Amino acid sequence: MSNEFSKNASELLTNIRDKGPLVWNFSNFVSMDIAANALLSIGASPAMAHAKEEAKDFSQICKTINGALTINIGTFDPYWQECALEAAKHANENNIPWVLDPVGAGASGFRNKNVEQLIKFKPTILRGNGSEIMAVAGLSGGGKGVDSTSTSNDAVDSAISIAKKNKIIVAVTGAIDYVTDGHVTYAVEGGNEMMTKVTATGCALTCLIGAAIAVGNNKLLSTASIIGIYDLAGEMASKVSRGPGSLRMNLLDKLYNISSDEIISNVKIKNV
Amino acid sequence: MSNEFSKNASELLTNIRDKGPLVWNFSNFVSMDIAANALLSIGASPAMAHAKEEAKDFSQICKTINGALTINIGTFDPYWQECALEAAKHANENNIPWVLDPVGAGASGFRNKNVEQLIKFKPTILRGNGSEIMAVAGLSGGGKGVDSTSTSNDAVDSAISIAKKNKIIVAVTGAIDYVTDGHVTYAVEGGNEMMTKVTATGCALTCLIGAAIAVGNNKLLSTASIIGIYDLAGEMASKVSRGPGSLRMNLLDKLYNISSDEIISNVKIKNV
Amino acid sequence: MSNEFSKNASELLTNIRDKGPLVWNFSNFVSMDIAANALLSIGASPAMAHAKEEAKDFSQICKTINGALTINIGTFDPYWQECALEAAKHANENNIPWVLDPVGAGASGFRNKNVEQLIKFKPTILRGNGSEIMAVAGLSGGGKGVDSTSTSNDAVDSAISIAKKNKIIVAVTGAIDYVTDGHVTYAVEGGNEMMTKVTATGCALTCLIGAAIAVGNNKLLSTASIIGIYDLAGEMASKVSRGPGSLRMNLLDKLYNISSDEIISNVKIKNV
Repeated sequence: MSNEFSKNASELLTNIRDKGPLVWNFSNFVSMDIAANALLSIGASPAMAHAKEEAKDFSQICKTINGALTINIGTFDPYWQECALEAAKHANENNIPWVLDPVGAGASGFRNKNVEQLIKFKPTILRGNGSEIMAVAGLSGGGKGVDSTSTSNDAVDSAISIAKKNKIIVAVTGAIDYVTDGHVTYAVEGGNEMMTKVTATGCALTCLIGAAIAVGNNKLLSTASIIGIYDLAGEMASKVSRGPGSLRMNLLDKLYNISSDEIISNVKIKNV
Repeated sequence: MSNEFSKNASELLTNIRDKGPLVWNFSNFVSMDIAANALLSIGASPAMAHAKEEAKDFSQICKTINGALTINIGTFDPYWQECALEAAKHANENNIPWVLDPVGAGASGFRNKNVEQLIKFKPTILRGNGSEIMAVAGLSGGGKGVDSTSTSNDAVDSAISIAKKNKIIVAVTGAIDYVTDGHVTYAVEGGNEMMTKVTATGCALTCLIGAAIAVGNNKLLSTASIIGIYDLAGEMASKVSRGPGSLRMNLLDKLYNISSDEIISNVKIKNV
Repeated sequence: MSNEFSKNASELLTNIRDKGPLVWNFSNFVSMDIAANALLSIGASPAMAHAKEEAKDFSQICKTINGALTINIGTFDPYWQECALEAAKHANENNIPWVLDPVGAGASGFRNKNVEQLIKFKPTILRGNGSEIMAVAGLSGGGKGVDSTSTSNDAVDSAISIAKKNKIIVAVTGAIDYVTDGHVTYAVEGGNEMMTKVTATGCALTCLIGAAIAVGNNKLLSTASIIGIYDLAGEMASKVSRGPGSLRMNLLDKLYNISSDEIISNVKIKNV
């Protein structure tokens, strides 16, 4: 369905590939490998650095060369918690676009507190699955550990409510993905159920959103666009995969190879 | 060799796929990716969470929805050590089935102490390679770092002795795998030597045992069954792999695709 | 280009495969998986162990069975920093060959300090990309986070200068790789640009250098040799890969399968 949104998505990808934006990540221990590889495959430049001692230096680099920050709370301990707060503070002070991934929100008081503290530093984008977004909204959406037990549809109202309350953009991903600033909401379709059988595909998407908002001025549409590209890459990769092992490989290959034509013809984003 | 054991293995896998049990893991930094992917491929729901601050919350979730815990000491530091002890204590108090993987036992005093402390909380299953199991038994089985220098056959007596002394089940894996409660011992055959060239395949198996004992009532047979399934998947994957890189991918695909018929006809478990 | 250097490289690989040397690694969170897998694929035995509490034990094992140590500062925090210094001290005292990988040197004061402290314990080999080596030499080579913005050619003088000043061997990797002790310099060609789109391929090479200097007496030539083998494996793997996902897999397969004939005929090392 070629339209202004799919054309915009194609332009965004060209932009990422041309500029190779720095994405500074507090990723979790499970997702670091696939997240760094997804960023490299799509043309961005990942840096994983979580030490409090270098948060200021990395925020200066991000500011200087127009990078972005992503924070994923998936495997925090008190030290990571402290460091991430420091990084978020610097991002907020320096207008560095940043993404918060509230992995497993609702599963523990510790996770809820991490999200509560980080969200005060106004992430540009909050991205989570249905259960996580509902948990952040204070609703009864506690997942099964870190996997979602709620659909993205269930969580749209929560997403809109969080977006309005915090004046941020919220992306809730699932069978259909929604991206909202509380006023305008985009629905993105694509992907494949087998993607949920590859660990950290959501975490990797969080990092790719970092690349998108590092180069794209319209943060709302850039987020919807990169989700559309990722969904399409996942869908195309699934078709040539025998299981989650080969899907992981084919997804990275497709992020590297996906063409403007494929994006313009097949990315599915609409205003809802 | 279709028999009651291979039928039982097939039923166990159906059970895992139907229930999608939560497996809460203290995995090590090397194994997190493959372990989470192996759990997803086989149909379970992994959660990696090691913070002491959330050990109680995760143990409550595990208790409520019949999950399991796995603890792998592979890359411990004093903080992880403390957190794992907290988690093991909660598992013990709440009757949550749990698996202990004593990676590199015998290689350092620190590792030996970790095992010594954790084993007091009565893991449902202790799984290690020959060197590790012999080290746990107090014998001279120190490996070459974390790789085994002793065969599983060398370690069977150690396994039986540990099982009897601690009233737990011990699995020693190698060319032939043995699972024993000190009285009944199963031998499991299969796998392929190339599996030892893929890092953390043993650690991933530890997590899969977590999935097995989360759903299976007979913990001894469930452990032998999941090892049989894993060995078969590894063996089948090896046949279509050109080296350790493709084996890692094909193993995950096979865990996802393996059929009841393949298991019933080919899993090799016997009472010895 | 079959010559004495490519024959030497082939002999080195045979030596690694025969002896299966222990390589004890302080790897970073991103590179642990691929580094351990690269070591296993090439025939070495990796151990990841970073706890200060076991540094002495692991250094004793390394000393006893002629292993090597590698230290990668990629995701250090103050605890890892302290532990790595302890390990480097033991390596220095016990004549254990060791490799230092100054990931992201120049990007933060914290990283610069880590390198400064560690280099005092005289790494046998320092390996980095152009930006990192220039940063270590005190020149303006700060990269874009952790990716290089300088070519290896730019950094050759820095490498020679560091080698002379510290009496160590320096390897600077890029489109062409250089290995120097300050007096003799080897240039190594091969590889493929797509290798830079797979995360941690440099970190994995650092660990492979560990395997090379564990078994090879001529540390300078052994380092050039293993880089030549790695470049060739990467080049051959690239030819059958559709993108970074399949390249990662094919690289590991090729490290496992690469033959003496392929090495003798194709490894490109010369004295410059």
